[in-house]
Amino acid sequence: MSSGQKTHAPTGHVVFVGAGPGDPDLLTIKALRALQAADVVIHDRLVSSDILDLSNPAARRLNAGKQGFGPAMSQDDINVLIVAHAVDGAHVVRLKGGDATVFGRLDEEIDAVTAAGIPWHVVPGITAASASVAAIGQSLTKRGRNAAVRFLTGHDMTGFADHDWRALARPGEVAAIYMGKKSARFIQGRLIMHGADRATPVTVIENASLPDQRVLSTTLDRLPADLGAAALTGPALTFLGLAPRAAETALSHSRQELA
Amino acid sequence: MSSGQKTHAPTGHVVFVGAGPGDPDLLTIKALRALQAADVVIHDRLVSSDILDLSNPAARRLNAGKQGFGPAMSQDDINVLIVAHAVDGAHVVRLKGGDATVFGRLDEEIDAVTAAGIPWHVVPGITAASASVAAIGQSLTKRGRNAAVRFLTGHDMTGFADHDWRALARPGEVAAIYMGKKSARFIQGRLIMHGADRATPVTVIENASLPDQRVLSTTLDRLPADLGAAALTGPALTFLGLAPRAAETALSHSRQELA
Repeated sequence: MSSGQKTHAPTGHVVFVGAGPGDPDLLTIKALRALQAADVVIHDRLVSSDILDLSNPAARRLNAGKQGFGPAMSQDDINVLIVAHAVDGAHVVRLKGGDATVFGRLDEEIDAVTAAGIPWHVVPGITAASASVAAIGQSLTKRGRNAAVRFLTGHDMTGFADHDWRALARPGEVAAIYMGKKSARFIQGRLIMHGADRATPVTVIENASLPDQRVLSTTLDRLPADLGAAALTGPALTFLGLAPRAAETALSHSRQELA
Repeated sequence: MSSGQKTHAPTGHVVFVGAGPGDPDLLTIKALRALQAADVVIHDRLVSSDILDLSNPAARRLNAGKQGFGPAMSQDDINVLIVAHAVDGAHVVRLKGGDATVFGRLDEEIDAVTAAGIPWHVVPGITAASASVAAIGQSLTKRGRNAAVRFLTGHDMTGFADHDWRALARPGEVAAIYMGKKSARFIQGRLIMHGADRATPVTVIENASLPDQRVLSTTLDRLPADLGAAALTGPALTFLGLAPRAAETALSHSRQELA
């Protein structure tokens, strides 16, 4: 595709990199190398400075989500930013939290880069569900419990098809719900309406893998009330159907190194 | 939990580490550090020597899946092996392909380690679905197409509930099917029986992230025939509802570094 691009400057390159859940040690080696070789790093708001500091010191860092000191950049503006730097010859790292392929709006950015004739590739990252389940010592799948796991987003929950609620309401189902804090009451209502056991375990993990990680262990019945009381402010992942295993042990070891 | 264990030797430690899909550069930094600090590495058959060679050179390497020159070790035997080394004081890395929490039988091993009073933690890894979808330049989720993605296993497919087939048969559904080669004809039959479009794109990715990665782009209608003709021999992941994006570009860049 780069052959379709004829400019005087050498054509750049875009690498869509998953930054993982937050702990810099959960970057892949490939992601670290991409950051070290970048001319420009265009990053999501939630990517920490600890991770950005691993970039090539000469790289420009551009925050693509300016919440806090201005309106969030539109997806179109982000696309334009990525393309402009790559057309200018830069090695661009587009750094996204977690895994870029999971609720990362990756396709829209690849479309823009492809349309501009810029070569690109994707470096996968650790998605929040993997880091969160590791922190509570559970598996996403388990023989005899669930042979399938679902990743859902709490955004646009009202558009979620009704028979999926029936399936999710079954005993033993496991789902990782991204961005599910605001939709907790809606999710609870639909699941109970479709026959879910009110005692179904639900675990909410905030800031997975980070020093301020918090784990809220509750049930479907108590989810909205307990979430309200906990007043979580960071990014959180909600697990339907999983309780922490020996929470005190998992938590105390979740950020330990082997030696 | 280590406080419950009173032995003369210092108690060891078990780290359940996801080795990722195969490319050593898709190890996390945390996984690499755990390997470098290990006394004993107990690994799945499919973990490559390129990855094992990153371990502490003094570490013992034990293959927990001896297919090819003997029967596979039973899960009970693997559990005993892990516990025996940790009780002996070793820092044990239990190295599993992909992410240990996805179809990794992790719970059974944690149960054994917990019962022996040995401290443990989990280091998440890149699961095959993430690496595979990155290789074909697609996302697991996409606005306007699917707000949920499922990871299934082709093992024990006959036990899969019937209304899940109805949901999976809908347009726009995306599922990553692990170990789905043998069950391809069964999956095809169930989906078509429940109304799936025979032209639904299906992509099978063998040896994702490795130099011998192969991508088979087909449709639900042609899946069993094309799979048979391709005669894939390595581990493969089947995507329902995804076709490669500009396959030649994605493939040519999938293993490139930025510089």
